[in-house]
Amino acid sequence: MKHIHSAKNPQVKQWKKLSNKKERDLTGSFLIEGFHLVEEALRENRIEEIIISETKDIPPSWDYGETSVTIVTDEVISQLTETEAPQGIIAVCNQLEAAVVTAEKKKYLLIDAVQDPGNLGTMIRTADAAGVDAIIVGTGSVDIYNSKVLRSAQGSHFHLPIIRGDLKEWIGRLKEADVPVYGTSLDRAQAFTAYKPSEAFALMMGNEGNGVSKDLLAMTTANLYIPLYGKSESLNVGIAAGILLYYLRK
Amino acid sequence: MKHIHSAKNPQVKQWKKLSNKKERDLTGSFLIEGFHLVEEALRENRIEEIIISETKDIPPSWDYGETSVTIVTDEVISQLTETEAPQGIIAVCNQLEAAVVTAEKKKYLLIDAVQDPGNLGTMIRTADAAGVDAIIVGTGSVDIYNSKVLRSAQGSHFHLPIIRGDLKEWIGRLKEADVPVYGTSLDRAQAFTAYKPSEAFALMMGNEGNGVSKDLLAMTTANLYIPLYGKSESLNVGIAAGILLYYLRK
Repeated sequence: MKHIHSAKNPQVKQWKKLSNKKERDLTGSFLIEGFHLVEEALRENRIEEIIISETKDIPPSWDYGETSVTIVTDEVISQLTETEAPQGIIAVCNQLEAAVVTAEKKKYLLIDAVQDPGNLGTMIRTADAAGVDAIIVGTGSVDIYNSKVLRSAQGSHFHLPIIRGDLKEWIGRLKEADVPVYGTSLDRAQAFTAYKPSEAFALMMGNEGNGVSKDLLAMTTANLYIPLYGKSESLNVGIAAGILLYYLRK
Repeated sequence: MKHIHSAKNPQVKQWKKLSNKKERDLTGSFLIEGFHLVEEALRENRIEEIIISETKDIPPSWDYGETSVTIVTDEVISQLTETEAPQGIIAVCNQLEAAVVTAEKKKYLLIDAVQDPGNLGTMIRTADAAGVDAIIVGTGSVDIYNSKVLRSAQGSHFHLPIIRGDLKEWIGRLKEADVPVYGTSLDRAQAFTAYKPSEAFALMMGNEGNGVSKDLLAMTTANLYIPLYGKSESLNVGIAAGILLYYLRK
């Protein structure tokens, strides 16, 4: 095992750069924090290296085989962490390649320009719970590998494939594969209960303020809305995704 | 209209005390912030007084009649605000008395020990959207009038009655009024889809970590769970409430 004592070590600086999306994309890597996330990533063979505080131990039950482990000081951890009370364990993971997802008769969640990391993370966690097979995130959304997105998703990043993709291309591909694609909109849409649950569908959720973009809504099989029975003006996008995914799935 | 220039004015100190739950309960009042919330509260006759920055104006469309208005400096506003970018308008509102809610053949949401203000606020907003008639919050929950709860609920506090109550008493009362009371639990519970939507029901959601307390689960008509189809270990309590409220309602 390697040891790094100084926060000025060039390796620490290189890891720290991964808090930046550009660097993540250049290297195809991202950072995760905490025992729960690292364990989930390990199980799915997604870890490149583990960075652990000298005051912590890797749980004996973990099967980390040949994975590179570096032991560091708490000062190094505090340089790398994005939380106030770091657990003392961080890992470098590899991003998924978009090619792992193909258009088949399965369940998909498409994300158009969702900007709040908590909302995207919660939707990833909810999609996992609802048995969604893949999530495709279009341009204009917060990054899949943003640390807050990773935290809110509570490990679901390692439970189902989440990739970036061109939503126009994906809507085309999915429709060609006979998967109905449902947009969400308050305008020219039908109550979701007008549609029947099915084993294959794609649900598209949109930006917190503006919803799904008009270009994309024009390409879908149908657009759905959730009726508002009280005096509320809208639902949170994560809540709406939960209601629709659990309704549409069979 | 009154004018207050100094943040040291005893009236300002009195308002400031309302950030504390004890003081809110003693006075039966609470503070709200921002034009949207104040407008909603005004429409429902819930405002005792409006506090506005000398740099802002009350929108001409507002019908505030005899409501007391105090004009203050931005320094006073910054003493009272809990946001980083205050809109310059605050109001003192009156709390609802528990007696406004009675057990009838309607829709209820019962809250047992939900502690995160964002979760409680989102559930209030979602219940409003789903056409719930009243929300009853038991002991151990974050305060209904906590400023973060008010912000996340986006005005729904003024759309349906939200009261504090003894959940054991309420479960009894609702069952007596022939309203089925559904707890939520992963243990000894049935998939929610085993139950039919209805016009009258009470749904009880519980603490983020421990769920609904066992004492209460033992008193319900039935306990429901949401199946987890993927590898996710749980759903966020607000998301779960959204899925269940939209499923159970008719």
